[in-house]
Amino acid sequence: MQYSDRILNTPSSFIRNILKVTDASDVISFAGGLPNPISFPLDAIQTSIDRAMKEHGAKLFQYSSTQGYLPLRQYIADKYNRKHGLDISPDDILLTTGSQQALELLAKVLVNKGDGIIIEKPGYLGAIQAFTLSEPTFYPVTLEEDGINLEELEKALQQPNVKMIYTVPNFQNPTGLTYSLEKRKQVYELVSRHDVVLIEDDPYGELRFEGEDLPYIGAGKLENSVLLGSFSKTVTPGMRLGFVITKNKELLTHIETAKQATDLHTNIFAQYVIYDYLANNDFDKHVEKIIDLYKTQSDAMLQAMEKYFPAHVSYTKPQGGMFIWATLNNGQSALDVFQKAMDKNVAFVPGDPFYTDPKGVSTMRLNYTNSTPEMIEEGIKRLASIF
Amino acid sequence: MQYSDRILNTPSSFIRNILKVTDASDVISFAGGLPNPISFPLDAIQTSIDRAMKEHGAKLFQYSSTQGYLPLRQYIADKYNRKHGLDISPDDILLTTGSQQALELLAKVLVNKGDGIIIEKPGYLGAIQAFTLSEPTFYPVTLEEDGINLEELEKALQQPNVKMIYTVPNFQNPTGLTYSLEKRKQVYELVSRHDVVLIEDDPYGELRFEGEDLPYIGAGKLENSVLLGSFSKTVTPGMRLGFVITKNKELLTHIETAKQATDLHTNIFAQYVIYDYLANNDFDKHVEKIIDLYKTQSDAMLQAMEKYFPAHVSYTKPQGGMFIWATLNNGQSALDVFQKAMDKNVAFVPGDPFYTDPKGVSTMRLNYTNSTPEMIEEGIKRLASIF
Repeated sequence: MQYSDRILNTPSSFIRNILKVTDASDVISFAGGLPNPISFPLDAIQTSIDRAMKEHGAKLFQYSSTQGYLPLRQYIADKYNRKHGLDISPDDILLTTGSQQALELLAKVLVNKGDGIIIEKPGYLGAIQAFTLSEPTFYPVTLEEDGINLEELEKALQQPNVKMIYTVPNFQNPTGLTYSLEKRKQVYELVSRHDVVLIEDDPYGELRFEGEDLPYIGAGKLENSVLLGSFSKTVTPGMRLGFVITKNKELLTHIETAKQATDLHTNIFAQYVIYDYLANNDFDKHVEKIIDLYKTQSDAMLQAMEKYFPAHVSYTKPQGGMFIWATLNNGQSALDVFQKAMDKNVAFVPGDPFYTDPKGVSTMRLNYTNSTPEMIEEGIKRLASIF
Repeated sequence: MQYSDRILNTPSSFIRNILKVTDASDVISFAGGLPNPISFPLDAIQTSIDRAMKEHGAKLFQYSSTQGYLPLRQYIADKYNRKHGLDISPDDILLTTGSQQALELLAKVLVNKGDGIIIEKPGYLGAIQAFTLSEPTFYPVTLEEDGINLEELEKALQQPNVKMIYTVPNFQNPTGLTYSLEKRKQVYELVSRHDVVLIEDDPYGELRFEGEDLPYIGAGKLENSVLLGSFSKTVTPGMRLGFVITKNKELLTHIETAKQATDLHTNIFAQYVIYDYLANNDFDKHVEKIIDLYKTQSDAMLQAMEKYFPAHVSYTKPQGGMFIWATLNNGQSALDVFQKAMDKNVAFVPGDPFYTDPKGVSTMRLNYTNSTPEMIEEGIKRLASIF
């Protein structure tokens, strides 16, 4: 049997393979990327399920529209207009099977084999996987403390057939970095001169525990802007519910056709239930609880790093989200360190899978959302003894 | 903005567009393909939700494995082994976001641009859409009363780079036709001499109201056999839960990688709930109720056709499933008839979208699962007045 080129070139998830090793109960794991279960409002969801079933009965179980449940799209539009000063309507929104699906659909409708995709370096692994299925040419642009490097971005935009730029502007996965206001303006200026889709993937934006919310780079201003959101980090990832926002009607129509052909529509039970939950609960208060927890955990990790890590290890200081990114400035291979760390029952994700062109990197992603401050201190201490 | 070739070539759903016109409450619609809501066991599902949430709590809401919930895969394996004499294990199964997703994943992992896909003529519209995203060359093979035409199949198998054959062996969509035992054996003999994947898509197989269950063509016998199943026609389509069964490990591994990149995993809440429902209810008795209803409806439509249709209209007599296929042997265009039918407030799906090379066909799909026998008689009578 001869398989397709696209699947032979798609990396299987390094992280999911790592998780199989790191799942043992005596391992302190910073390898995952799971939200803390505190983010699942179980009792409120149970109430919403009962109410939605009572009110809508069989509609929760029948085939449904590809674009998604209108009241939920209306809720999302209202929220983004209110919180971010956008001017979007429910027609500008399509609900997806998690925002992972949105990534795959975007590449599917925009990218012919060999077309260019600009991606942050390091970049989100799930995006690299999803995009690879469309067999693009990747143009990685270095992600710095305040956002992507502008000179490299300008150069990448000169390449032939560049179709899209993929960014995670807030608390990026894997680095935890956030674009500065100034950098957002500069990226907007640069991108607005090109016929290219700017994707802002923002699953973590609401989980800010320091600093002020910043305006999106292109959303609401740029014709070819696409904003992605998700309920995975604030309500539940298990129900797989994300969304695409764009005012480019032609693009959204193509995404809808691709979604139809891909899985017909998003689980409608989940759409009714999550809408009911959002409409009947104090969501901001719920998110506040998640933020408080993650801030405590992030603080614990940063303090332990300051206390234990040798001077040659640098690391990011996230203002929100779920990750810290560490760099071994003495050139140690993160994969070598990973093996030694596993001997000490502590795990993280070596940086390699976050690059489209990995070459034995010295970087690593550390997640803090599923460990207690005590476990975090102990794990960082063990790690430090290897460096 | 320049879009990808694949999306520009993908038909948007003709049926979904038609449904927008035919949804008016005074229209008698045979256009849909929806299961009757009798197939949604609402009370039992409510009980299962409560029990699954109580037993497993946060696990219903967290990220989960790409392959799917093990007890549900075990249930499926046991059932197919028991009912169809197969020898499959949970490891041979992957759960998908509806079986529509399985179609898209299969093409994704097997088909390079231009590679061949053999498909029934007429064939399932959703498969045509899903496969088109991989830019294949379609080789349609005429579907006859007892299954696909063997000479055409043999000829199609001689074409270069044919990667897969797509069949719906039981109560096919759109025709309602079922492969005979003899034809199944002949297709098996022919296909087993070629290095090609045989897909048997069987969403309707349990809904047999006449005749005996027949063995699958390749499942359990053929190395490159893929069997697709779904809970959409017997429990709920809204939760989007289907599955792939294959003993080809390499193929299943590639499908898993593609699924990871496409939507990470299938809604885990739905997997727990449907497993609980299946484990704690008399499923066969439930299906019996659906079968009784559909048989009554199918009988009503066939009787009305016999009573009202002129001699130049022929039609299939399904032994199960949801559809009857009619042919206007005087060469009338089904699209023309559709316009006239809408003037009389009766709707169906013209045959055109079920062909990869439509040319003003004289065939039409009629669904009976969502109309009362009285509505069915009235609708068929109105249709007959146009022919």
